[in-house]
Amino acid sequence: MDHTIPDIVIGRLPLYLRELSRMEGDPDRITTSSHELAERLGISSAQIRKDLSHFGEFGKQGTGYHVHYLIERLTEILHLTHEWPVALVGAGFLGHALASYRGFQRRGFAITRVFDNDSATVGKTIGELVVRGIEEMAADLRESGIRIAILAVPADAAQTMTDRLVEAGVRAILSYAPVSLTVPPGVQVSYSDPVVQLQQMTYYLAAGGE
Amino acid sequence: MDHTIPDIVIGRLPLYLRELSRMEGDPDRITTSSHELAERLGISSAQIRKDLSHFGEFGKQGTGYHVHYLIERLTEILHLTHEWPVALVGAGFLGHALASYRGFQRRGFAITRVFDNDSATVGKTIGELVVRGIEEMAADLRESGIRIAILAVPADAAQTMTDRLVEAGVRAILSYAPVSLTVPPGVQVSYSDPVVQLQQMTYYLAAGGE
Repeated sequence: MDHTIPDIVIGRLPLYLRELSRMEGDPDRITTSSHELAERLGISSAQIRKDLSHFGEFGKQGTGYHVHYLIERLTEILHLTHEWPVALVGAGFLGHALASYRGFQRRGFAITRVFDNDSATVGKTIGELVVRGIEEMAADLRESGIRIAILAVPADAAQTMTDRLVEAGVRAILSYAPVSLTVPPGVQVSYSDPVVQLQQMTYYLAAGGE
Repeated sequence: MDHTIPDIVIGRLPLYLRELSRMEGDPDRITTSSHELAERLGISSAQIRKDLSHFGEFGKQGTGYHVHYLIERLTEILHLTHEWPVALVGAGFLGHALASYRGFQRRGFAITRVFDNDSATVGKTIGELVVRGIEEMAADLRESGIRIAILAVPADAAQTMTDRLVEAGVRAILSYAPVSLTVPPGVQVSYSDPVVQLQQMTYYLAAGGE
Protein backbone atom coordinates (compact mmCIF):
# COMPACT_ATOMS: atom_id res chain seq x y z
CA MET A 1 0.00 0.00 0.00
CA ASP A 2 1.07 3.53 -0.75
CA HIS A 3 2.01 5.21 2.50
CA THR A 4 2.28 8.71 1.13
CA ILE A 5 -1.30 9.26 0.08
CA PRO A 6 -2.14 12.98 0.12
CA ASP A 7 -4.50 14.17 2.85
CA ILE A 8 -6.81 15.60 0.22
CA VAL A 9 -7.30 12.11 -1.26
CA ILE A 10 -8.09 10.68 2.17
CA GLY A 11 -10.49 13.58 2.65
CA ARG A 12 -12.56 12.50 -0.36
CA LEU A 13 -12.86 8.82 0.59
CA PRO A 14 -15.69 9.45 3.10
CA LEU A 15 -17.64 11.19 0.32
CA TYR A 16 -17.24 8.16 -1.93
CA LEU A 17 -18.26 5.89 0.92
CA ARG A 18 -21.33 8.00 1.68
CA GLU A 19 -22.53 8.02 -1.92
CA LEU A 20 -21.85 4.30 -2.41
CA SER A 21 -23.82 3.53 0.75
CA ARG A 22 -26.76 5.47 -0.66
CA MET A 23 -26.50 3.47 -3.87
CA GLU A 24 -26.45 0.24 -1.90
CA GLY A 25 -29.82 1.20 -0.44
CA ASP A 26 -31.26 0.26 -3.82
CA PRO A 27 -31.51 -3.56 -3.80
CA ASP A 28 -31.29 -3.73 -7.60
CA ARG A 29 -27.98 -1.94 -7.65
CA ILE A 30 -24.80 -4.03 -8.09
CA THR A 31 -22.23 -1.81 -9.79
CA THR A 32 -21.41 1.84 -10.43
CA SER A 33 -18.89 3.74 -12.54
CA SER A 34 -16.49 6.58 -11.92
CA HIS A 35 -18.66 8.62 -14.29
CA GLU A 36 -21.80 8.05 -12.24
CA LEU A 37 -19.99 8.84 -8.99
CA ALA A 38 -18.51 11.92 -10.64
CA GLU A 39 -21.90 13.24 -11.66
CA ARG A 40 -23.40 12.66 -8.23
CA LEU A 41 -20.46 14.12 -6.31
CA GLY A 42 -19.35 16.96 -8.56
CA ILE A 43 -15.82 15.52 -8.70
CA SER A 44 -14.23 14.56 -12.02
CA SER A 45 -14.27 10.87 -12.94
CA ALA A 46 -10.52 10.98 -13.62
CA GLN A 47 -9.97 12.27 -10.08
CA ILE A 48 -12.10 9.51 -8.61
CA ARG A 49 -10.25 6.79 -10.57
CA LYS A 50 -6.90 8.26 -9.52
CA ASP A 51 -7.93 8.53 -5.85
CA LEU A 52 -9.08 4.92 -5.71
CA SER A 53 -6.05 3.63 -7.62
CA HIS A 54 -3.90 4.51 -4.57
CA PHE A 55 -5.49 1.54 -2.84
CA GLY A 56 -5.49 -1.09 -5.56
CA GLU A 57 -7.53 -2.17 -8.54
CA PHE A 58 -11.22 -1.79 -7.78
CA GLY A 59 -12.82 -1.30 -11.16
CA LYS A 60 -12.96 -3.36 -14.30
CA GLN A 61 -12.95 -1.82 -17.73
CA GLY A 62 -16.51 -1.99 -18.98
CA THR A 63 -18.21 -3.23 -15.82
CA GLY A 64 -17.19 -0.50 -13.37
CA TYR A 65 -17.00 -0.80 -9.60
CA HIS A 66 -18.80 -3.40 -7.55
CA VAL A 67 -20.64 -1.20 -5.01
CA HIS A 68 -20.67 -3.57 -2.05
CA TYR A 69 -17.04 -4.59 -2.49
CA LEU A 70 -15.89 -0.97 -2.79
CA ILE A 71 -17.83 -0.07 0.38
CA GLU A 72 -16.12 -2.93 2.22
CA ARG A 73 -12.69 -1.83 1.08
CA LEU A 74 -13.25 1.85 1.93
CA THR A 75 -14.59 0.80 5.32
CA GLU A 76 -11.36 -1.10 5.96
CA ILE A 77 -9.13 1.68 4.65
CA LEU A 78 -10.80 4.27 6.88
CA HIS A 79 -10.65 1.94 9.92
CA LEU A 80 -14.40 1.73 10.23
CA THR A 81 -14.75 -2.04 10.52
CA HIS A 82 -15.44 -1.58 14.21
CA GLU A 83 -17.61 1.16 15.67
CA TRP A 84 -15.63 3.90 17.39
CA PRO A 85 -17.00 5.12 20.71
CA VAL A 86 -17.14 8.91 20.86
CA ALA A 87 -17.25 11.27 23.82
CA LEU A 88 -19.38 14.39 23.43
CA VAL A 89 -18.36 17.40 25.53
CA GLY A 90 -21.09 20.00 25.93
CA ALA A 91 -24.80 19.28 26.38
CA GLY A 92 -26.27 22.59 25.19
CA PHE A 93 -28.48 22.99 22.12
CA LEU A 94 -25.77 21.76 19.79
CA GLY A 95 -24.81 18.90 22.09
CA HIS A 96 -28.44 17.81 22.15
CA ALA A 97 -28.62 17.94 18.36
CA LEU A 98 -25.45 15.86 18.04
CA ALA A 99 -26.47 13.33 20.68
CA SER A 100 -29.82 12.93 18.92
CA TYR A 101 -28.33 12.70 15.43
CA ARG A 102 -29.07 9.31 13.91
CA GLY A 103 -26.55 9.72 11.11
CA PHE A 104 -23.71 8.28 13.20
CA GLN A 105 -25.33 4.86 13.16
CA ARG A 106 -23.92 2.37 10.70
CA ARG A 107 -21.27 4.86 9.66
CA GLY A 108 -18.66 3.87 12.21
CA PHE A 109 -19.40 5.93 15.31
CA ALA A 110 -21.53 5.96 18.43
CA ILE A 111 -21.63 8.70 21.04
CA THR A 112 -21.29 6.72 24.23
CA ARG A 113 -20.54 9.52 26.70
CA VAL A 114 -21.83 13.05 27.22
CA PHE A 115 -20.10 15.46 29.60
CA ASP A 116 -21.08 18.95 30.70
CA ASN A 117 -19.86 21.35 33.36
CA ASP A 118 -23.30 22.71 34.23
CA SER A 119 -24.54 21.11 37.44
CA ALA A 120 -28.13 21.74 36.30
CA THR A 121 -27.53 19.53 33.25
CA VAL A 122 -25.43 16.77 34.83
CA GLY A 123 -27.56 13.75 35.68
CA LYS A 124 -30.18 14.49 33.04
CA THR A 125 -30.57 12.18 30.08
CA ILE A 126 -30.17 12.85 26.36
CA GLY A 127 -31.67 9.94 24.52
CA GLU A 128 -30.25 6.96 26.40
CA LEU A 129 -27.20 8.75 27.77
CA VAL A 130 -26.88 10.32 31.20
CA VAL A 131 -24.92 13.58 31.17
CA ARG A 132 -21.83 13.25 33.36
CA GLY A 133 -19.88 15.96 35.12
CA ILE A 134 -16.65 17.25 33.62
CA GLU A 135 -14.77 16.23 36.77
CA GLU A 136 -15.46 12.58 35.90
CA MET A 137 -14.22 12.98 32.34
CA ALA A 138 -10.49 12.27 32.58
CA ALA A 139 -10.83 9.07 34.59
CA ASP A 140 -13.75 7.86 32.51
CA LEU A 141 -12.02 8.42 29.18
CA ARG A 142 -8.86 6.72 30.34
CA GLU A 143 -10.78 3.72 31.64
CA SER A 144 -12.94 3.37 28.54
CA GLY A 145 -10.05 4.00 26.14
CA ILE A 146 -12.08 6.48 24.09
CA ARG A 147 -9.87 8.19 21.50
CA ILE A 148 -12.38 10.41 19.67
CA ALA A 149 -14.27 13.41 21.06
CA ILE A 150 -16.69 15.99 19.76
CA LEU A 151 -16.37 19.42 21.34
CA ALA A 152 -19.61 21.41 21.53
CA VAL A 153 -18.66 24.04 24.09
CA PRO A 154 -18.33 27.84 23.91
CA ALA A 155 -15.13 29.33 22.49
CA ASP A 156 -13.87 30.35 25.93
CA ALA A 157 -13.93 26.79 27.22
CA ALA A 158 -12.62 25.04 24.12
CA GLN A 159 -8.86 25.09 24.73
CA THR A 160 -9.16 24.03 28.37
CA MET A 161 -11.43 21.14 27.41
CA THR A 162 -9.10 20.19 24.55
CA ASP A 163 -6.15 20.02 26.93
CA ARG A 164 -8.11 17.77 29.28
CA LEU A 165 -9.24 15.50 26.44
CA VAL A 166 -5.70 15.13 25.10
CA GLU A 167 -4.36 14.49 28.59
CA ALA A 168 -6.95 11.71 28.93
CA GLY A 169 -5.83 9.97 25.73
CA VAL A 170 -8.11 11.45 23.07
CA ARG A 171 -6.35 11.63 19.69
CA ALA A 172 -9.02 13.04 17.35
CA ILE A 173 -11.28 16.01 18.12
CA LEU A 174 -14.11 17.43 16.06
CA SER A 175 -14.62 20.94 17.38
CA TYR A 176 -17.68 23.13 16.90
CA ALA A 177 -16.17 25.95 18.95
CA PRO A 178 -15.31 28.99 16.78
CA VAL A 179 -11.67 29.13 17.77
CA SER A 180 -8.36 27.61 16.64
CA LEU A 181 -7.07 25.02 19.09
CA THR A 182 -3.51 24.11 20.00
CA VAL A 183 -2.77 20.39 20.26
CA PRO A 184 0.46 18.39 20.51
CA PRO A 185 1.78 16.35 17.56
CA GLY A 186 -0.17 13.16 17.02
CA VAL A 187 -3.51 14.73 17.88
CA GLN A 188 -5.87 15.63 15.05
CA VAL A 189 -8.43 18.43 15.14
CA SER A 190 -11.19 19.00 12.61
CA TYR A 191 -13.30 22.15 12.81
CA SER A 192 -16.90 22.94 12.05
CA ASP A 193 -17.83 26.64 12.13
CA PRO A 194 -20.90 27.66 10.14
CA VAL A 195 -19.76 31.30 10.01
CA VAL A 196 -16.40 30.40 8.47
CA GLN A 197 -18.22 28.33 5.85
CA LEU A 198 -20.66 31.14 5.08
CA GLN A 199 -17.84 33.70 4.87
CA GLN A 200 -16.04 31.47 2.37
CA MET A 201 -19.11 31.82 0.13
CA THR A 202 -19.91 35.53 0.51
CA TYR A 203 -16.63 36.39 -1.17
CA TYR A 204 -18.13 34.97 -4.37
CA LEU A 205 -21.55 36.54 -3.97
CA ALA A 206 -21.88 39.67 -6.06
CA ALA A 207 -21.88 42.57 -3.67
CA GLY A 208 -24.80 44.18 -5.50
CA GLY A 209 -27.15 41.34 -4.82
CA GLU A 210 -27.62 41.56 -1.07
CA MET B 1 -6.83 43.49 -7.42
CA ASP B 2 -5.94 39.95 -8.42
CA HIS B 3 -9.02 38.27 -9.84
CA THR B 4 -7.61 34.78 -9.97
CA ILE B 5 -7.11 34.16 -6.29
CA PRO B 6 -7.20 30.44 -5.49
CA ASP B 7 -10.24 29.17 -3.60
CA ILE B 8 -7.96 27.73 -0.93
CA VAL B 9 -6.65 31.24 -0.18
CA ILE B 10 -10.18 32.62 0.12
CA GLY B 11 -10.96 29.68 2.36
CA ARG B 12 -8.32 30.76 4.87
CA LEU B 13 -9.37 34.42 5.09
CA PRO B 14 -12.26 33.72 7.49
CA LEU B 15 -9.80 31.97 9.82
CA TYR B 16 -7.56 35.05 9.81
CA LEU B 17 -10.56 37.27 10.43
CA ARG B 18 -11.74 35.10 13.31
CA GLU B 19 -8.38 35.10 15.03
CA LEU B 20 -7.86 38.85 14.48
CA SER B 21 -11.28 39.52 15.97
CA ARG B 22 -10.32 37.56 19.06
CA MET B 23 -7.11 39.60 19.32
CA GLU B 24 -9.13 42.80 19.02
CA GLY B 25 -11.07 41.76 22.11
CA ASP B 26 -7.97 42.73 24.07
CA PRO B 27 -8.09 46.55 24.36
CA ASP B 28 -4.30 46.76 24.73
CA ARG B 29 -3.73 45.03 21.44
CA ILE B 30 -2.82 47.18 18.40
CA THR B 31 -0.71 45.03 16.08
CA THR B 32 0.10 41.41 15.32
CA SER B 33 2.59 39.59 13.11
CA SER B 34 2.39 36.79 10.60
CA HIS B 35 4.44 34.76 13.08
CA GLU B 36 1.94 35.23 15.87
CA LEU B 37 -0.99 34.42 13.59
CA ALA B 38 0.92 31.39 12.33
CA GLU B 39 1.43 30.04 15.81
CA ARG B 40 -2.19 30.54 16.78
CA LEU B 41 -3.63 29.08 13.58
CA GLY B 42 -1.20 26.30 12.78
CA ILE B 43 -0.56 27.82 9.35
CA SER B 44 2.97 28.85 8.29
CA SER B 45 3.81 32.55 8.52
CA ALA B 46 5.06 32.51 4.91
CA GLN B 47 1.66 31.17 3.81
CA ILE B 48 -0.17 33.89 5.73
CA ARG B 49 1.99 36.65 4.23
CA LYS B 50 1.51 35.21 0.75
CA ASP B 51 -2.26 34.88 1.19
CA LEU B 52 -2.64 38.47 2.36
CA SER B 53 -0.32 39.83 -0.34
CA HIS B 54 -2.98 38.94 -2.93
CA PHE B 55 -5.00 41.85 -1.59
CA GLY B 56 -2.34 44.52 -1.16
CA GLU B 57 0.27 45.60 1.35
CA PHE B 58 -1.03 45.16 4.87
CA GLY B 59 2.07 44.68 6.97
CA LYS B 60 5.12 46.76 7.62
CA GLN B 61 8.54 45.28 8.11
CA GLY B 62 9.23 45.43 11.82
CA THR B 63 5.83 46.59 13.03
CA GLY B 64 3.61 43.84 11.60
CA TYR B 65 -0.10 44.10 10.86
CA HIS B 66 -2.45 46.65 12.37
CA VAL B 67 -5.18 44.39 13.77
CA HIS B 68 -8.15 46.73 13.37
CA TYR B 69 -7.18 47.80 9.86
CA LEU B 70 -6.65 44.20 8.73
CA ILE B 71 -10.06 43.24 10.17
CA GLU B 72 -11.66 46.09 8.21
CA ARG B 73 -9.99 45.07 4.98
CA LEU B 74 -10.86 41.36 5.36
CA THR B 75 -14.43 42.35 6.18
CA GLU B 76 -14.60 44.28 2.92
CA ILE B 77 -12.92 41.55 0.88
CA LEU B 78 -15.34 38.91 2.16
CA HIS B 79 -18.35 41.20 1.58
CA LEU B 80 -19.24 41.36 5.24
CA THR B 81 -19.62 45.13 5.59
CA HIS B 82 -23.38 44.60 5.69
CA GLU B 83 -25.10 41.82 7.58
CA TRP B 84 -26.46 39.08 5.33
CA PRO B 85 -29.94 37.79 6.16
CA VAL B 86 -30.03 33.99 6.22
CA ALA B 87 -32.95 31.59 5.85
CA LEU B 88 -32.83 28.45 7.97
CA VAL B 89 -34.69 25.43 6.60
CA GLY B 90 -35.47 22.78 9.20
CA ALA B 91 -36.49 23.42 12.80
CA GLY B 92 -35.49 20.11 14.38
CA PHE B 93 -32.79 19.71 17.04
CA LEU B 94 -30.09 21.02 14.73
CA GLY B 95 -32.25 23.86 13.46
CA HIS B 96 -32.89 24.89 17.05
CA ALA B 97 -29.16 24.79 17.81
CA LEU B 98 -28.40 26.95 14.76
CA ALA B 99 -31.22 29.42 15.41
CA SER B 100 -29.99 29.80 18.99
CA TYR B 101 -26.32 30.09 18.04
CA ARG B 102 -24.96 33.47 19.06
CA GLY B 103 -21.82 33.15 16.99
CA PHE B 104 -23.47 34.62 13.89
CA GLN B 105 -23.74 38.01 15.54
CA ARG B 106 -21.13 40.54 14.58
CA ARG B 107 -19.66 38.10 12.08
CA GLY B 108 -21.80 39.13 9.13
CA PHE B 109 -24.94 37.01 9.34
CA ALA B 110 -28.34 36.90 10.97
CA ILE B 111 -30.88 34.12 10.64
CA THR B 112 -34.03 36.07 9.85
CA ARG B 113 -36.32 33.25 8.68
CA VAL B 114 -36.96 29.69 9.82
CA PHE B 115 -39.02 27.28 7.73
CA ASP B 116 -40.21 23.76 8.48
CA ASN B 117 -42.61 21.34 6.82
CA ASP B 118 -43.96 19.91 10.08
CA SER B 119 -47.34 21.46 10.85
CA ALA B 120 -46.75 20.77 14.55
CA THR B 121 -43.69 23.04 14.45
CA VAL B 122 -44.99 25.80 12.17
CA GLY B 123 -46.18 28.78 14.19
CA LYS B 124 -43.96 28.02 17.17
CA THR B 125 -41.12 30.37 18.02
CA ILE B 126 -37.39 29.77 18.21
CA GLY B 127 -35.85 32.69 20.00
CA GLU B 128 -37.53 35.68 18.35
CA LEU B 129 -38.40 33.90 15.10
CA VAL B 130 -41.72 32.29 14.24
CA VAL B 131 -41.35 29.04 12.27
CA ARG B 132 -43.04 29.40 8.89
CA GLY B 133 -44.44 26.70 6.65
CA ILE B 134 -42.43 25.47 3.68
CA GLU B 135 -45.26 26.49 1.34
CA GLU B 136 -44.56 30.14 2.21
CA MET B 137 -40.86 29.80 1.52
CA ALA B 138 -40.54 30.57 -2.19
CA ALA B 139 -42.63 33.75 -2.12
CA ASP B 140 -41.05 34.93 1.10
CA LEU B 141 -37.47 34.44 -0.10
CA ARG B 142 -38.16 36.18 -3.37
CA GLU B 143 -39.78 39.12 -1.64
CA SER B 144 -37.07 39.49 0.97
CA GLY B 145 -34.25 38.93 -1.53
CA ILE B 146 -32.50 36.45 0.76
CA ARG B 147 -29.57 34.81 -1.04
CA ILE B 148 -28.11 32.58 1.68
CA ALA B 149 -29.73 29.54 3.28
CA ILE B 150 -28.78 26.94 5.85
CA LEU B 151 -30.22 23.50 5.25
CA ALA B 152 -30.89 21.44 8.39
CA VAL B 153 -33.23 18.81 7.02
CA PRO B 154 -32.94 15.01 6.67
CA ALA B 155 -31.02 13.57 3.71
CA ASP B 156 -34.21 12.53 1.92
CA ALA B 157 -35.56 16.09 1.83
CA ALA B 158 -32.32 17.89 1.04
CA GLN B 159 -32.34 17.88 -2.77
CA THR B 160 -35.99 18.90 -3.01
CA MET B 161 -35.44 21.77 -0.57
CA THR B 162 -32.28 22.79 -2.44
CA ASP B 163 -34.18 22.96 -5.73
CA ARG B 164 -36.82 25.16 -4.11
CA LEU B 165 -34.23 27.44 -2.53
CA VAL B 166 -32.36 27.88 -5.81
CA GLU B 167 -35.63 28.50 -7.65
CA ALA B 168 -36.41 31.24 -5.12
CA GLY B 169 -33.10 33.02 -5.71
CA VAL B 170 -30.78 31.54 -3.07
CA ARG B 171 -27.19 31.46 -4.29
CA ALA B 172 -25.26 30.04 -1.32
CA ILE B 173 -26.32 27.03 0.74
CA LEU B 174 -24.69 25.59 3.85
CA SER B 175 -26.03 22.05 4.10
CA TYR B 176 -25.99 19.82 7.16
CA ALA B 177 -27.72 17.00 5.32
CA PRO B 178 -25.40 14.00 4.77
CA VAL B 179 -25.82 13.90 1.00
CA SER B 180 -24.23 15.49 -2.07
CA LEU B 181 -26.49 18.07 -3.67
CA THR B 182 -26.87 19.02 -7.31
CA VAL B 183 -27.06 22.74 -8.06
CA PRO B 184 -26.84 24.79 -11.25
CA PRO B 185 -23.77 26.90 -12.08
CA GLY B 186 -23.59 30.07 -10.02
CA VAL B 187 -24.93 28.42 -6.87
CA GLN B 188 -22.46 27.54 -4.12
CA VAL B 189 -22.90 24.69 -1.65
CA SER B 190 -20.82 24.10 1.46
CA TYR B 191 -21.29 20.92 3.48
CA SER B 192 -21.08 20.09 7.14
CA ASP B 193 -21.24 16.38 7.99
CA PRO B 194 -19.73 15.32 11.32
CA VAL B 195 -19.37 11.72 10.15
CA VAL B 196 -17.34 12.69 7.09
CA GLN B 197 -15.06 14.76 9.32
CA LEU B 198 -14.64 11.93 11.81
CA GLN B 199 -13.95 9.41 9.02
CA GLN B 200 -11.24 11.70 7.66
CA MET B 201 -9.49 11.34 11.02
CA THR B 202 -9.93 7.61 11.71
CA TYR B 203 -7.76 6.83 8.69
CA TYR B 204 -4.85 8.28 10.68
CA LEU B 205 -5.72 6.65 13.99
CA ALA B 206 -3.62 3.56 14.60
CA ALA B 207 -5.90 0.62 14.14
CA GLY B 208 -4.58 -1.01 17.30
CA GLY B 209 -5.78 1.76 19.55
CA GLU B 210 -9.53 1.39 19.35
